[in-house]
Amino acid sequence: MVLQAAFFKLAEIIPVDEAVALMKEFVEKTYGKKGKTVVRLNTKAVDAGIEATKKIDIPAEWANDVDEAAPAKKEVPAFIENILVPINQQKGDDLPVSAFMGMEDGTLPLGTSAYEKRNIAIEVPAWDATKCIQCNQCSLVCSHGVIRPYLMNEEEVKAAPEGFEMVKAKGANLSEYTYSLQISNMDCTSCGSCASVCPAKDKALVMKPISEKEYDQAHWEYGLTISEKPEAMATNIKMSQFIKPLLEFSGACGGCGETPYIKLLTQMFGDKMYFANATGCTQAWGSAMPCVPYTTNKDGHGPAWSNSLFENNAEFSLGMMLAVQQQRIGVRNKIEALVAMEDVPADVKAAADEWFNTYDDLNASEPASRALEKAIKAASLEGEAEVLAKRILNSSDHLSKKTMWMVGGDGWAYDIGYGGLDHVFSMGVDVNVLLVDTEVYSNTGGQSSKATQLGAVAQFAAAGKRSRKKDLGALMMTYKDVYVAQVSMGASQSQLLKALKEAEAYPGPSIVIAYAPCITHGIKAGMSCVQDEMKRAVDSGYWSLYRYNPSNTEQPFILDSGEPKLDFEEFLAGEVRFAALKKDFPEVAEELFAEAKIQAKQKYEEYKQMEAASRE
Amino acid sequence: MVLQAAFFKLAEIIPVDEAVALMKEFVEKTYGKKGKTVVRLNTKAVDAGIEATKKIDIPAEWANDVDEAAPAKKEVPAFIENILVPINQQKGDDLPVSAFMGMEDGTLPLGTSAYEKRNIAIEVPAWDATKCIQCNQCSLVCSHGVIRPYLMNEEEVKAAPEGFEMVKAKGANLSEYTYSLQISNMDCTSCGSCASVCPAKDKALVMKPISEKEYDQAHWEYGLTISEKPEAMATNIKMSQFIKPLLEFSGACGGCGETPYIKLLTQMFGDKMYFANATGCTQAWGSAMPCVPYTTNKDGHGPAWSNSLFENNAEFSLGMMLAVQQQRIGVRNKIEALVAMEDVPADVKAAADEWFNTYDDLNASEPASRALEKAIKAASLEGEAEVLAKRILNSSDHLSKKTMWMVGGDGWAYDIGYGGLDHVFSMGVDVNVLLVDTEVYSNTGGQSSKATQLGAVAQFAAAGKRSRKKDLGALMMTYKDVYVAQVSMGASQSQLLKALKEAEAYPGPSIVIAYAPCITHGIKAGMSCVQDEMKRAVDSGYWSLYRYNPSNTEQPFILDSGEPKLDFEEFLAGEVRFAALKKDFPEVAEELFAEAKIQAKQKYEEYKQMEAASRE
Repeated sequence: MVLQAAFFKLAEIIPVDEAVALMKEFVEKTYGKKGKTVVRLNTKAVDAGIEATKKIDIPAEWANDVDEAAPAKKEVPAFIENILVPINQQKGDDLPVSAFMGMEDGTLPLGTSAYEKRNIAIEVPAWDATKCIQCNQCSLVCSHGVIRPYLMNEEEVKAAPEGFEMVKAKGANLSEYTYSLQISNMDCTSCGSCASVCPAKDKALVMKPISEKEYDQAHWEYGLTISEKPEAMATNIKMSQFIKPLLEFSGACGGCGETPYIKLLTQMFGDKMYFANATGCTQAWGSAMPCVPYTTNKDGHGPAWSNSLFENNAEFSLGMMLAVQQQRIGVRNKIEALVAMEDVPADVKAAADEWFNTYDDLNASEPASRALEKAIKAASLEGEAEVLAKRILNSSDHLSKKTMWMVGGDGWAYDIGYGGLDHVFSMGVDVNVLLVDTEVYSNTGGQSSKATQLGAVAQFAAAGKRSRKKDLGALMMTYKDVYVAQVSMGASQSQLLKALKEAEAYPGPSIVIAYAPCITHGIKAGMSCVQDEMKRAVDSGYWSLYRYNPSNTEQPFILDSGEPKLDFEEFLAGEVRFAALKKDFPEVAEELFAEAKIQAKQKYEEYKQMEAASRE
Repeated sequence: MVLQAAFFKLAEIIPVDEAVALMKEFVEKTYGKKGKTVVRLNTKAVDAGIEATKKIDIPAEWANDVDEAAPAKKEVPAFIENILVPINQQKGDDLPVSAFMGMEDGTLPLGTSAYEKRNIAIEVPAWDATKCIQCNQCSLVCSHGVIRPYLMNEEEVKAAPEGFEMVKAKGANLSEYTYSLQISNMDCTSCGSCASVCPAKDKALVMKPISEKEYDQAHWEYGLTISEKPEAMATNIKMSQFIKPLLEFSGACGGCGETPYIKLLTQMFGDKMYFANATGCTQAWGSAMPCVPYTTNKDGHGPAWSNSLFENNAEFSLGMMLAVQQQRIGVRNKIEALVAMEDVPADVKAAADEWFNTYDDLNASEPASRALEKAIKAASLEGEAEVLAKRILNSSDHLSKKTMWMVGGDGWAYDIGYGGLDHVFSMGVDVNVLLVDTEVYSNTGGQSSKATQLGAVAQFAAAGKRSRKKDLGALMMTYKDVYVAQVSMGASQSQLLKALKEAEAYPGPSIVIAYAPCITHGIKAGMSCVQDEMKRAVDSGYWSLYRYNPSNTEQPFILDSGEPKLDFEEFLAGEVRFAALKKDFPEVAEELFAEAKIQAKQKYEEYKQMEAASRE
């Protein structure tokens, strides 16, 4: 209001007095319902804007200033120089068609988001190595992958640049290493989630104005060269974070509840993963041309990732899965034919045996495949055997087991793509879903979906949603041969890790439904508290954690969350999507919230009964 | 094989000896796997066909025979004369576009199937009035509506044509009436279902060759003129059958398991019903242009019925429902405005009160609407009141409450249209589904659907379906506010009637899943035993009867079928869709049938648990 008044004074589009009168009339009209105080404050703001304008003279010497010398040009890939940089300079429309030669099929290079330094942080986390307990939770929850913990060997310690912060690694099996935590200030979005979750006494991470804590870019870059240690495995959350995430610097909102889940998935399954991405936020932040936040590991391999539509992502994923399956059957037939030949050396046959034994084992299949490749290359084969060997080596990519994932939001899985998801899941095939459930169409501005909770305010449900949230987990469990889990990262990181592992290992269809807070929820505590909000959702019984594993014959259904201990309505009160209903339609809110509370309680009781029945 | 051999002998396309050699070679090739006996019998048939041909001389006088005089032309509606008759004479392609003027929007007159007398019966049921217990089950189960029981008053008895069979009506409240049962031999398909279900001692209905029991067409036609008595109401199955069915003489197969359900629906809700028909068999037998088997009652009113697609039938139905709702809201607004006027007479106001009170009552709304109409017509209104009255009377069709039904098969509801059905059902709106579940895509030749049972042989599941039947009822019950019932006419007619009534009365979405045997099942006992097969399905635990009624707060879930008492595998053995698997893949059959049996048992136990939990 202040700036608007100042604008009208300076621009003189209409006489100032007339502008002031109109603005005050508009204030009355707009804020009348909100009470006299609000009207008074706004009217005052109009006056302030008119009165407080002050002319500032520009120093004359500015006219003769010269630009600073441009920094030495770094060598970057052709895609970055020829496409990403021009597009980010708003010169995309000037690019000739020929700039896209070789990309006619829509294939994009991975990892291009690393070249788009947005530098938007106002505050960045400041790390105090002395207070740090090295739990790596800050790394896990970072929506943009800008916090990286490292395990360094002696050589790496010696080679570190000056001022590179390091400390002795904690943990019995890590005593030989030095620990460091590096932060990319140019990629940070200032959400503060990392500092918020830091469990260290007095906080080892504190958000500070960027002027007080500007990291040395050289430190970040040195960090990226540190080798991945053999201990970096997804055995638990701490160790999983020493693996390079293959999702970084996406276009997601600060504090996004979705990205930390999918980032963890890339740390668990890396380049063994194929994934089909449905329309929705995951696509918006995951492929905002020319920026691809999915990246590659040290071998230059990343997840094989492809976008599809809302309505067909499950079918699309099934097609990818079947294609991979057929390719592997093709190479298996060739290996069978090769080892059936008399002249083939014993070591090739032994390697092939191991390869057959580990055919469906995601972890063991990779080393067995490389060993077989090595043995075949080393053997001197002739005639038909040589031809077969060549063909097998040509299919190198398809030797090892892959894992197929679909990724998307509730708009896809509960709504527009549900028919297809149901169809594919009815077929008993080995596909997996990681569903980031924001309970609303986040990407298109917050329209109500079938995942939206009773009483929540959303587009198309301005006076509160009148029907209950669709229970996708219950629907999928009716198939009896589908793995189903509900998770919430902030409530239990270990349960999340277990669920993703079990989903991958389960030989049929699996779905992991992940609670993902979103800016559309209007979390009153702020987006820095997203992880705590995930916990509150579970503590209040708003969201339950469970795992239904048909291959666990002793107890297929496990309820992982305890009796609610936070008041249900207290949780609702903490989010604008519910609080707005209480403000605008208090009677409706009272009725719907009471009903939602009853439903949540009933649902929890049902889970308890299912667990009890499951134990029988 | 005999006729083929005879053909080659007479046609002399290739030398006979060569033809015989080729046919025998083919016999060896085709039936070799089925054993020597089959090959021998077929080889013998080839020889028989060659040897047994015998020349028959045509009498010379046949050349001079004249056609019999055509019967006097009956007066029929223009549509029949100008469209139906030419099309059925294979002259449809000669019809000019102008023949369809006035039908450009696809609207067809109802009841045209009554003019297509197919006369295909070889046997027809013979009724013995002396043995008949007047239960009307024969009428209920008749797939084509060709058996009609009547209650006649004294005048109607007197006016009956000579030889019209009648007998004193049984039942305390029917003592004033005479009972008759009329059969349309020209519309009968000889399925024998009526005779099969007849519970009378020594059978009151027996199938006899049509030469022995040719009914007088005049009797059938006189029957159609008998008035519907006030006792004809869907209070129980017997009484429901005295109501004229508004579905008759369809193109369905003899013994069709689908049509008796939908015929009953028309007797229950008649012209109060709007319905949306999905692609599938229900559409094939329900609208084989130019024959429409949906017909009208004595007032010339029938169900408002429209075809839609596989993929959008639920949405289509929702649209119809919303349109009807809006039309009624429109007329309600006008009635409210009318009664608010001072000069409006008290009797109009009283009639309007009754109309408002019965607004949502399917049965009471109709007489209240007619009474209001009468009162408005009788009142002398002037000025604005007269204008409003005219508009209200113009909306006569929308005064009374309607009931919205979707009809379709498993290919629609479980598969292609499931996404839409789920979406519409999530909205809590008052729509109803009658799903005739044949567990296969019947209309297109028996492709496997998600409703196909584990182990059943179908197209795309030639070696037995490997996944369990999708549990649509369980899926719908997860919404908690959806009425769900599973029914099977032959197992319990009264449970079926209850379910359809409750579904209609329930103010939210309702679905009734009806077990519907089909010729594709290959029932070994024959299609005359369809009703018994429905019973066997329930007796063996293959299909369960239940009703889940959210508005029944005392006990929402009721299991209507008892503990299985027929061996599960014995049921499977009675149908070719299962028996074929046992014959062709005995090991697969053993495994899948055993698993299906376990699953059926578990499912029944679950229902028992749900009922127990529901009582708490």
